[in-house]
Amino acid sequence: MTKAQFGAETSNSGEWVRQSNRFTDRITADGSSGWKAEPGRYHLVVSLACPWAHRSVIARRLLGLEDVLSLGIVDPLRDERGWRFTLDPDGRDPVTGLSFLADAYLAGDQNYSGRYTVPAVVDVASGRVVTNDYPQLTLDLSTEWARFHRPGAPSLYPPELREEIDEINAVVYSDVNNGVYKCGFATSQEAYERAFDALFARLDWLSERLESRRYLVGDTITEADIRLFTTLVRFDAAYHGHFKCNRHKLTELPVLWAYARDLFQTPGFGDTVDFDHIKRHYYSTHAQINPTGIVPAGPNLSGWHTPHGRAALGGRPFGDGTPPSM
Amino acid sequence: MTKAQFGAETSNSGEWVRQSNRFTDRITADGSSGWKAEPGRYHLVVSLACPWAHRSVIARRLLGLEDVLSLGIVDPLRDERGWRFTLDPDGRDPVTGLSFLADAYLAGDQNYSGRYTVPAVVDVASGRVVTNDYPQLTLDLSTEWARFHRPGAPSLYPPELREEIDEINAVVYSDVNNGVYKCGFATSQEAYERAFDALFARLDWLSERLESRRYLVGDTITEADIRLFTTLVRFDAAYHGHFKCNRHKLTELPVLWAYARDLFQTPGFGDTVDFDHIKRHYYSTHAQINPTGIVPAGPNLSGWHTPHGRAALGGRPFGDGTPPSM
Repeated sequence: MTKAQFGAETSNSGEWVRQSNRFTDRITADGSSGWKAEPGRYHLVVSLACPWAHRSVIARRLLGLEDVLSLGIVDPLRDERGWRFTLDPDGRDPVTGLSFLADAYLAGDQNYSGRYTVPAVVDVASGRVVTNDYPQLTLDLSTEWARFHRPGAPSLYPPELREEIDEINAVVYSDVNNGVYKCGFATSQEAYERAFDALFARLDWLSERLESRRYLVGDTITEADIRLFTTLVRFDAAYHGHFKCNRHKLTELPVLWAYARDLFQTPGFGDTVDFDHIKRHYYSTHAQINPTGIVPAGPNLSGWHTPHGRAALGGRPFGDGTPPSM
Repeated sequence: MTKAQFGAETSNSGEWVRQSNRFTDRITADGSSGWKAEPGRYHLVVSLACPWAHRSVIARRLLGLEDVLSLGIVDPLRDERGWRFTLDPDGRDPVTGLSFLADAYLAGDQNYSGRYTVPAVVDVASGRVVTNDYPQLTLDLSTEWARFHRPGAPSLYPPELREEIDEINAVVYSDVNNGVYKCGFATSQEAYERAFDALFARLDWLSERLESRRYLVGDTITEADIRLFTTLVRFDAAYHGHFKCNRHKLTELPVLWAYARDLFQTPGFGDTVDFDHIKRHYYSTHAQINPTGIVPAGPNLSGWHTPHGRAALGGRPFGDGTPPSM
């Protein structure tokens, strides 16, 4: 990611405005979209550093789609060609043969000029990106891929709660998920402070909501928890320092810290977190805010494994379902 | 402060090596050095942002030298000409008439090519820097200026404790006072991590020492406490994020946090702290590590005024003396 890559996403008042997602085809149960949900047909490409991609990694694991939808993991550090499969033997993704994710974008649209983002779902046969529409992707994993879910898979997007989940997701996206980026990529003091105030006001609001309820919506884990978790788990390791989201550390916000630990210790959450990828990616990638590329040795992360005490609030993480196997 | 200004202080292995102090004349009680301690003869120029200068501000106030040694405060933001008196009417220091501290350095040595640093003691009559030797300066305020101390001034550098104070000061300087800069200005990951490890090992050692004793040496405030305090009070506001000293915040180190609050709430310490100058200086000045110049809105600093519970350890902050008047 270079300054130039992000330059087009900065407004005149110094606010950072995320680009729209370009590949928005849907993979559907009935194939009416042209892309039918089928085992082995698609490859989910993620960076373990990326919070948007992390959502899909968690959903895939909670729903038991590991054997149906394969996973490709890119190097946390990009070069000028973007995300790379340098973690794989010979630098090639074994499923698609790709060396650079960019090639899957250009296979889908040879004139594509946006950023090459993760997550991206690649059609294995053609090697082209089908979708990088991360908000729709996890919802589709819950719904369109339902026939392939493991026995006991939780209901992450139950019809009767969708309206409430969507409402929470909208404000969490604007103020928190994307809010930390608005803090970090602001190029004016005013834009930064607006984003900072909105972020911490929303975190206070979430703390209040979660003080007496174990999960954001209903009494089980839902899509809303997944989306909040992927930002919270990166908060102290990256956003607090790198993006200047520093009114408090997550560890200083007792309700949210306990909530995040509860999820972290739930199968499907903490076991999908890679703090090394997270830290190296953020601090090495954004030369416009960390030109030395030095990666902080802190914070001490041992607290993630400490007791959270949230079970006393009730709630059943997986509802009538079961946890994924370890 | 520009990258070029600091470039000469970076070793081949990416370590930052602070320049030596250039003006090391002493102001003495008997004037044998050529500079006699006299009321009204000298002007102490400081930045309230700077920890090295802050030592002298605290010592001056604890010792009651305010009416003897006048104080000039520079703008926390420098330009290419260095520290400026832009906070004063017409941008001129009212005592010396200086607009730029640089001119006092050049008056002392027209070939001076080092950084223009604070604190600097300026001879009012000639407008030239007498000394910028900050470690010696505070010791001399305690000793050579003794006849001008207020009644009830504490003994900050008592002869029977000097050896122990010097020993503590040496390791605190290397690992903590200067250690945070070594973290922040390292240009290699290895140099950064060495400085980080030494810093936090020393903070752990200090925590252990201060767990059962209220002050670093003896049972009253000494020079050793002043020197540790000026770094601790800047820790969360600047060093934790800006210099990547982020294993823990100071607020997460219970003994040191209580020790620092105890001092902060002691006359002469907290009343000389300007968090606004501190934050704006650090984050706006070092383009090589914060090119956007955006100043974090955090951290929340309200905790500095909370009870510290350290009185239970005994100790008498001012020994047989008294606090400075508020």
